[in-house]
Amino acid sequence: MSPTEQILRGERRAIARQISGIENDRPEARRVLAELYPSTGRAYLLGLTGAPGTGKSTLANELAKAYRRESKTVAIISVDPTSPFTGGAILGDRIRMHDLAGDPGVFVRSMATRGSLGGLARATADAAKVFDAAGFEIILIETVGVGQAEVEIAGLAHSVVVVEAPGLGDEVQAIKAGILEIADVFVVNKADREGASRTVAALNMMLDLTHNTLPKTVLHHGLLMEAAAAGSDKNPGAEAGWRPPICQTIATQGKGIDEVVRALAEHRTYQQASGVLARRERERLIFEIQQLLKERLLADLLTQTPPEQINAILEQVVERQLDPYTAVEQLLVGE
Amino acid sequence: MSPTEQILRGERRAIARQISGIENDRPEARRVLAELYPSTGRAYLLGLTGAPGTGKSTLANELAKAYRRESKTVAIISVDPTSPFTGGAILGDRIRMHDLAGDPGVFVRSMATRGSLGGLARATADAAKVFDAAGFEIILIETVGVGQAEVEIAGLAHSVVVVEAPGLGDEVQAIKAGILEIADVFVVNKADREGASRTVAALNMMLDLTHNTLPKTVLHHGLLMEAAAAGSDKNPGAEAGWRPPICQTIATQGKGIDEVVRALAEHRTYQQASGVLARRERERLIFEIQQLLKERLLADLLTQTPPEQINAILEQVVERQLDPYTAVEQLLVGE
Repeated sequence: MSPTEQILRGERRAIARQISGIENDRPEARRVLAELYPSTGRAYLLGLTGAPGTGKSTLANELAKAYRRESKTVAIISVDPTSPFTGGAILGDRIRMHDLAGDPGVFVRSMATRGSLGGLARATADAAKVFDAAGFEIILIETVGVGQAEVEIAGLAHSVVVVEAPGLGDEVQAIKAGILEIADVFVVNKADREGASRTVAALNMMLDLTHNTLPKTVLHHGLLMEAAAAGSDKNPGAEAGWRPPICQTIATQGKGIDEVVRALAEHRTYQQASGVLARRERERLIFEIQQLLKERLLADLLTQTPPEQINAILEQVVERQLDPYTAVEQLLVGE
Repeated sequence: MSPTEQILRGERRAIARQISGIENDRPEARRVLAELYPSTGRAYLLGLTGAPGTGKSTLANELAKAYRRESKTVAIISVDPTSPFTGGAILGDRIRMHDLAGDPGVFVRSMATRGSLGGLARATADAAKVFDAAGFEIILIETVGVGQAEVEIAGLAHSVVVVEAPGLGDEVQAIKAGILEIADVFVVNKADREGASRTVAALNMMLDLTHNTLPKTVLHHGLLMEAAAAGSDKNPGAEAGWRPPICQTIATQGKGIDEVVRALAEHRTYQQASGVLARRERERLIFEIQQLLKERLLADLLTQTPPEQINAILEQVVERQLDPYTAVEQLLVGE
């Protein structure tokens, strides 16, 4: 049986091998991805992000268990956009193993950066496609840490949960992390801690201030996006109408999890009814093609240009005899 | 007088106008940048990063004052890689205005993202060039928040200060943020707080574990970098030999700042003597050209392809009739 067929049948070793192939950017893995692609588009992608210390991993674990109780299959992708040796992703896996190990309806996989942020976002998107094609119904993408990387990776998901916790120094960590705008559902975890009601109140105040008045963060942008918009009659439209609910949980005790699952189901229904889901999916795919296209164009140019010529131009820039913009023009002409 | 001449003479309004032009990607601003380029390469670029709540802005302020006491001119670029409306950068400016306003040897400028992380890193690099050409001796690049974005922006700097503070929930926030590896100097700020010695001890332990045994985070990577390395006899080499010192400060009282300035001077001397400075600068410039090149190649391709054709291909991907990799091939052939 071919790797593609094995993955479509949900064979775990084939899935694991394919994701390793994606991480290492093997040509064979790309070929398999192309074959899997028509079988994707059925899974529900759920993003989970928040500052360190909010209990994200425990919450991801509990959400997975809740979906399992509904007999849904769950894949968890734990993404660490920081360094390959912070160990965050590995720790998360160990915690989860205890509860979820041995369940064939669950697949946990960590992905760490190999130096490139863009590469990691792409690898995560491709890993999600593998799980999707393999028939996993819920794909939970959990990020370690906070920042623009997390915002971009969360942009892969259909619904984004932003996790907060009281007592982390700031009332609402997402404000400083800049991830407030991407939340579809807020979770205040560790709700039994002092300050939980203050965190909920701060979030509510923030939503009062920003809901329907401020633009959504533009996750997917660039020239191909603009071209697609110009050549299409599909109107981006506003995403008004959904105010992110605020759920309170004590993930370590499994409390409040059902409420989060319910909020997510409501968000999904809203998105389908409003057409937001189809639009987000479209934007995501176009952005993905744009990134692939840029890499390919650069690779082609470099294959066609003699290395000596490239280096001669680069040296002139280093010596400040040539500015970067002019250097780019020269590299293009040398094609 | 031309804008270029005005900037070279250090005229503040011309500088401000040029940086706005960079942020908005005006063609005129690119032309001026090319003209300024031969006059760059003299400033000392200093990166300052750390988790929210560590007192980064106050420290930046105090460092600026210390350099002013040495009669050095200072530009502060406050970068917020999160949303345009978190207000972090603006707050930072307000704090600083009090101390530094009216000093012609200081220039404070905020830069916020306009949706694109890559765009912000480029705009920050270009803004630094403007200050460099205008004769500012120290350019302090301060990031708001933590994450891969900060790592990339810090990669612009010659020396990187990572700020920690006790009592933020984790002993060393940089571990979770993944910015530990990019530090040239550590600062434990709020050193009068309980737990400061624990934070210093944790950092020392971390350095004992990782120093000279783990690779530096690769900030600049990609195909052009590889081509440059292949066609050059310049060996990347190891960056062993420098163990980041740990300074303790109470920035709000101006305590310990001189020690940080001294540590940075030592790092600079080390870098010059070891050749690391020249290598970092070279890598940074090549990476910059690579990013510009990718954007230009994509722009050229899109100009040459009829919008209807682009959209027909994109729609097939959205309908799952075509996978993204094959779509890229078709867009390239259609050129």
